[in-house]
Amino acid sequence: MRPAENGWWQIEHDSIFPGVDYAFFLDDAGPFPDPRSQFQPHGVHGPSRVVDHRSFRWTTERWQPPPLSSAVVYELHVGAFTREGTFLSAIERLDHLKVLGITHVELMPVQEFSGKWGWGYDGVDLYAPHHAYGSPDDLKRFVDAAHTRDLAVLLDVVYNHLGPAGNYLDRFAPYFMKRYSTPWGPAINLDDAGSCEVRRFLCDNAIMWMRDYRFDGLRIDAIHAIHDSSAIHFLAQLSREVDELEAHLGRSLVLIAESDLNDPRVVTPRPAGGLGIDAQWSDDFHHALHSVLTGERSGYFADFGSLAQLAKALTNAYVYDGRFSAYRRAIHGAKPRNLDGWRFLGYLQNHDQIGNRPAGERASQLMSLGRLKIGVALLFCSPFIPMLFQGEEFMASSPFPYFTQHEDPDLARAVSEGRRREFASFEWNPESIPDPQDPMTFRRAKLDWTEPDREPHQSILAFYKRLIDLRRTFPELTDGSFDRVDVRFDERQEWIILRRGRIAVLANLSDAAQKLRVPLRSTPLISSESEFPVPSGEFVMAPDSLLIVQSPVELFAPRDTLTP
Amino acid sequence: MRPAENGWWQIEHDSIFPGVDYAFFLDDAGPFPDPRSQFQPHGVHGPSRVVDHRSFRWTTERWQPPPLSSAVVYELHVGAFTREGTFLSAIERLDHLKVLGITHVELMPVQEFSGKWGWGYDGVDLYAPHHAYGSPDDLKRFVDAAHTRDLAVLLDVVYNHLGPAGNYLDRFAPYFMKRYSTPWGPAINLDDAGSCEVRRFLCDNAIMWMRDYRFDGLRIDAIHAIHDSSAIHFLAQLSREVDELEAHLGRSLVLIAESDLNDPRVVTPRPAGGLGIDAQWSDDFHHALHSVLTGERSGYFADFGSLAQLAKALTNAYVYDGRFSAYRRAIHGAKPRNLDGWRFLGYLQNHDQIGNRPAGERASQLMSLGRLKIGVALLFCSPFIPMLFQGEEFMASSPFPYFTQHEDPDLARAVSEGRRREFASFEWNPESIPDPQDPMTFRRAKLDWTEPDREPHQSILAFYKRLIDLRRTFPELTDGSFDRVDVRFDERQEWIILRRGRIAVLANLSDAAQKLRVPLRSTPLISSESEFPVPSGEFVMAPDSLLIVQSPVELFAPRDTLTP
Repeated sequence: MRPAENGWWQIEHDSIFPGVDYAFFLDDAGPFPDPRSQFQPHGVHGPSRVVDHRSFRWTTERWQPPPLSSAVVYELHVGAFTREGTFLSAIERLDHLKVLGITHVELMPVQEFSGKWGWGYDGVDLYAPHHAYGSPDDLKRFVDAAHTRDLAVLLDVVYNHLGPAGNYLDRFAPYFMKRYSTPWGPAINLDDAGSCEVRRFLCDNAIMWMRDYRFDGLRIDAIHAIHDSSAIHFLAQLSREVDELEAHLGRSLVLIAESDLNDPRVVTPRPAGGLGIDAQWSDDFHHALHSVLTGERSGYFADFGSLAQLAKALTNAYVYDGRFSAYRRAIHGAKPRNLDGWRFLGYLQNHDQIGNRPAGERASQLMSLGRLKIGVALLFCSPFIPMLFQGEEFMASSPFPYFTQHEDPDLARAVSEGRRREFASFEWNPESIPDPQDPMTFRRAKLDWTEPDREPHQSILAFYKRLIDLRRTFPELTDGSFDRVDVRFDERQEWIILRRGRIAVLANLSDAAQKLRVPLRSTPLISSESEFPVPSGEFVMAPDSLLIVQSPVELFAPRDTLTP
Repeated sequence: MRPAENGWWQIEHDSIFPGVDYAFFLDDAGPFPDPRSQFQPHGVHGPSRVVDHRSFRWTTERWQPPPLSSAVVYELHVGAFTREGTFLSAIERLDHLKVLGITHVELMPVQEFSGKWGWGYDGVDLYAPHHAYGSPDDLKRFVDAAHTRDLAVLLDVVYNHLGPAGNYLDRFAPYFMKRYSTPWGPAINLDDAGSCEVRRFLCDNAIMWMRDYRFDGLRIDAIHAIHDSSAIHFLAQLSREVDELEAHLGRSLVLIAESDLNDPRVVTPRPAGGLGIDAQWSDDFHHALHSVLTGERSGYFADFGSLAQLAKALTNAYVYDGRFSAYRRAIHGAKPRNLDGWRFLGYLQNHDQIGNRPAGERASQLMSLGRLKIGVALLFCSPFIPMLFQGEEFMASSPFPYFTQHEDPDLARAVSEGRRREFASFEWNPESIPDPQDPMTFRRAKLDWTEPDREPHQSILAFYKRLIDLRRTFPELTDGSFDRVDVRFDERQEWIILRRGRIAVLANLSDAAQKLRVPLRSTPLISSESEFPVPSGEFVMAPDSLLIVQSPVELFAPRDTLTP
């Protein structure tokens, strides 16, 4: 190969055409896969395959995704979503999602990683769909099948680190830097010597997924671990390039960040000094909701637990907006200003909140059915973009523990032992913590698709569907304005009432029945109980119960009509 | 001592009053000086002394500093400014600065550091004036004496690292963090567990200097090495607290940053998403000017050298505003928008640009007198706040090399050897590089105050004074608007013309005489040559010569009247 500009090397060769496998020798070392490999049919250590993105026959043309502001997102893991764990088998369940009312499907990372299965956050060939899930064309078939059902598809991308196995990038160029570190390894070089082409590597990667695979947007993993002191932050560059791609392709594209910074700048438009990311995950809302519903106070839940914090999350997104966090032992966050509710994704569950528990328990295993329904109702009536984790909608019995299939025995042992050590401080029997390397750990995470047709799953599925329908029926639920979110609560009596436009969500979290006042002439819409109340001034709510009513008028002006 | 809130310990004791020395034992280790020691009369390892800030008798009341937008700053090193090297002896030279036309005196760091002399950037007792310079009251006398002459005083503060000797802070609390690093040691903990009180330590420090010592502002060293991922950046917190202090004290306070980021956010007001720092040093202008005048292209000067870059610096502050830097091998900077010229300090020399050269040579040793005058003229007619380094105004013969007086023999040896190693790659004879630990290195840096009264120094001093007078006389030179800065140049013919309002600066940088067109009916004001031109349409300029003329009209509208 001959050196070209900016550190690139090039060669032209007759034998390189779609379907051919190739690899690189660097001086005397190698062979190594191409850093921009489009497909690794034999895994992270094998050769790369040439892929022609122009040959796929798309069935949808002039596709436009539904707007993000009224989205309902569904996070899924290709390997555990179906028994087969492939892109093609996932297509069979898209109708289920469509009927449920989902608008955006979000795939957990599918970039080639070490082993046949794993969560995907240890990807090393960022341009290649994981070979165990299917071929590049299979992934396109999945996206195309979703689009034919008017479902948008988002992809989770990891731009803060690379996985520990199969990462040959540093042999090619200065992809990493030592000045900063991440919990998972060296930080990616975004501002030091040679960073230009590293930034291009990531931006071109984002562009490829949206242009060649027609993803409608990306979910960017853990941006708090993306270290960049440049005057133009990598994410600002990325959001600008995605804007340009959007204009070029003529269809809407979105960027969603996972951010632990509580920094409103992330989702502030670039002209206003922000990074221009469209929306971010809202852990504060999750933590506030989860801790109220479960009473859990360990780890980061120590910072939460009051109804006041849940109310603040519902009206302000960040609970920690410049306040001292006892868990972090530091001031955390800043006040969001002029940001709409749809700048934040809300969720009762996601892969991390389930999977980072020792046994990967879902919310349904941690609280009463009544409380689960309260959580779901507050989620779908919140100002945020609601997001579900696969199977949540039918109260799937499968857990979602951490699973890996590393082939390197040292790494495999380190992962197994590390997992046990991580939870040693909790009151957990190490034997009851699933071994990530045990194939059964992965197998148990797979959804059982007979459940949606059986009780009690069927009723829960109907409950989720009713709430999604409610969100679609009442525009005040998706108007995005925090100013029009009204929350009342009584910390001691343990009730909370959320009002948005004509809708009021009443929840009794006490273990005793209590009377809550219902708006005059209101119509009961959804209840956690089998018996619906007679619409009147007051209603006795059972312990852990929920009631959603529709008032004939907006519930805002007289701010005290609803207090009990 | 008894534990109090937020990690503090406290004690009340009858024997603690102003003038008493004390130190702390931590468990069985110690004694250690107080992290907030107000004075270290016996150096960095000795006890701390109690100081009463209320007892000093200030002679100035209702003091208001001159506005920053029309400032002329003078950077000085207390130890080398006078033979005695003290706060009190520096007072004797304030009249010289006042007569020259200086408005703001900026002291290089005076916080207690290891040894009797040193540059000051390795301070470890950030609340204590260096004992070799005098007492806290002596420093107040200096500030008071400046104020009586209507001179503002700024202080250089180092908030990115602490020096290697006498730093006991990490024994008291988590002042440092490992996630980030700086070239000079561990980064200060501004966003991790325990960072609240570390941020208070620095903010309270800034407040102390401005409140108790009546400094008019601070110059914050190397903010690019201040690592903070918090949503409220430490510098935004600091600028907000300084705004509050300003309101409380009823006098104007300023913050000036040394920044290598070329990030306009630094000097953008907080409501517009910035950090709210008033102004920043502009290395791009220095490098562009210095490389054009000297022809130097080594190190970071490799990125500069063209008149086009000098013109861009004069009209845009940043030469690298999102462009690729060959020296950094990375994209650098972002475009400044809506920022006035006075947001940037311009300089032909400063302590770093002199002292970071192997032998500490001043600009006057590196270029012809004609070029020096061109540089000075462009500086004072630039849209920036001009800054001089001590002695520059009279072409001091004393160099300003790096000097230290570390007492620890290992550290002393490391500093001496490190300095030789640092310049080993340059074509320098290691023997000719001054040893920082040699007392003569420091002694040679001291200004010779007989020079201003002798030639050739006297004439240069008069030249600087004429330019400062010019800047004060013509308001267009301090109007701050980049839109009204007009620069023409010819890269091959090596001339440059800077026009601002009625003023035109013409410079011939070629080694041949050449004709440059002078505005019609203009009056020659300042020339590098002994003979003044007859005001006419064209003028033959000698090699390395300068001419400043005043036109009877604004020189902007007909944009081509000036081209030769």
